[in-house]
Amino acid sequence: MVGQMKSFLFLFIFLVLSKTVVSARKPSKSQPKPCKNFVLYYHDIMFGVDDVQNATSAAITNPPGLGNFKFGKLVIFDDPMTIDKNFKSEPVARAQGFYFYDMKNDYNAWFAYTLVFNSTQHKGTLNIMGADLMMVKSRDLSVVGGTGDFFMSRGIVTFETDTFEGAKYFRVKMDIKLYDCY
Amino acid sequence: MVGQMKSFLFLFIFLVLSKTVVSARKPSKSQPKPCKNFVLYYHDIMFGVDDVQNATSAAITNPPGLGNFKFGKLVIFDDPMTIDKNFKSEPVARAQGFYFYDMKNDYNAWFAYTLVFNSTQHKGTLNIMGADLMMVKSRDLSVVGGTGDFFMSRGIVTFETDTFEGAKYFRVKMDIKLYDCY
Amino acid sequence: MVGQMKSFLFLFIFLVLSKTVVSARKPSKSQPKPCKNFVLYYHDIMFGVDDVQNATSAAITNPPGLGNFKFGKLVIFDDPMTIDKNFKSEPVARAQGFYFYDMKNDYNAWFAYTLVFNSTQHKGTLNIMGADLMMVKSRDLSVVGGTGDFFMSRGIVTFETDTFEGAKYFRVKMDIKLYDCY
Repeated sequence: MVGQMKSFLFLFIFLVLSKTVVSARKPSKSQPKPCKNFVLYYHDIMFGVDDVQNATSAAITNPPGLGNFKFGKLVIFDDPMTIDKNFKSEPVARAQGFYFYDMKNDYNAWFAYTLVFNSTQHKGTLNIMGADLMMVKSRDLSVVGGTGDFFMSRGIVTFETDTFEGAKYFRVKMDIKLYDCY
Repeated sequence: MVGQMKSFLFLFIFLVLSKTVVSARKPSKSQPKPCKNFVLYYHDIMFGVDDVQNATSAAITNPPGLGNFKFGKLVIFDDPMTIDKNFKSEPVARAQGFYFYDMKNDYNAWFAYTLVFNSTQHKGTLNIMGADLMMVKSRDLSVVGGTGDFFMSRGIVTFETDTFEGAKYFRVKMDIKLYDCY
Repeated sequence: MVGQMKSFLFLFIFLVLSKTVVSARKPSKSQPKPCKNFVLYYHDIMFGVDDVQNATSAAITNPPGLGNFKFGKLVIFDDPMTIDKNFKSEPVARAQGFYFYDMKNDYNAWFAYTLVFNSTQHKGTLNIMGADLMMVKSRDLSVVGGTGDFFMSRGIVTFETDTFEGAKYFRVKMDIKLYDCY
């Protein structure tokens, strides 16, 4: 009897301590494994360069002239997100939000947007914001919240520019990693 | 004695396991109960349609012509939040931020704003962002942070359009549910 | 033997309950100690008032006339962050994002931006948003996410206006307190 209880106790020690380590939120250099992870492609087709029929985004301000890299150009978008690189593939989500250019001596941008999922597989949204440091191959933005199937999620989205066709079209590979899942 | 300890142990089993279930952050379809929950009404009175005296918001860009649903119209607001539907009621908070329209074939919007509370009951702010899918009766945005009485809060705000009077005035019921409280 | 186990049990009671208090996320008026805390100065030099060479920000919209306090003026910035008050000091980070004025009867603003760190000491970003209640001496915004060295961070940034030189230059002391560190 006492022996059984000792076994119970050591099981508790293990459970309580392992739990404590997980939730203590002390600084640690090794990042945990995501609880959800998927890659989607973002397609941006600019109105004015392309027509109403095809366009998925539009600039609403003109750069005021601070440098030669579109500083201050603000673009609103409702862009398709696909699982492959073809922008004509059936979208699995929409990306709704905005970006603007914000550097006077190079191309650099800042994004805030919502991924809207409305399929049999996923219903809900992910809210994302952060700097898009375009001169860096791979850059991280924050998933700051989620709703529906992504209730209260947080995580990281890693951007990689996949192609850039002048002012008309660009495509970004977005690697979405959620670390808080409910 | 040993009997008492057994009772203690089962109490522990219950406490440790229930705690683990709550904080393990594994995917789960049932959402937890909010730690704070309240409903407020958001009133938006557009400048240019109404006058300076009454107006609480103003458009700062013109839609560039991508479709017929105001795509790209960006509105800055400092709107009253009330506990009933009367926009002349004493506000319990201000909603400060912006929204824009972002769909070419229907009305659809995107919001980012701060609820500013400064009363004897509540002092502090809640920061909110997300897609306002206007064609859906009820849609969820993210509470991504809070300060003061809402220190470090996170949660969900559920929008329901309560009334829409042309370009001049609209009212949204905002059901604010916080799941992280400190 | 049974005596030893009793000691174990009381140790468990202490561990389990103290853990529960920490993570139960019940409302509490005392804020925890930050896991990281540092002060930086934000310098904003406006294009049009100053020249391309010196300017670090630019307005992209004109106030539409709702009151006399620049309601609706939206500014994009790529501003240096320094550890002292001298804007010519070597920046330890860039602040990339935007603010706008949003009150018709006083100066009041709203910010969303990313602190970009790229030094030997820190690599990564912090994403921040919230109301800048300029009439209040000290006001809190939310750190809603982080990447790199600041992986998944959350916290509070406390703004204090340090100087305001007309339309050309202002400096804000930003006290950055992180409460979630990994």
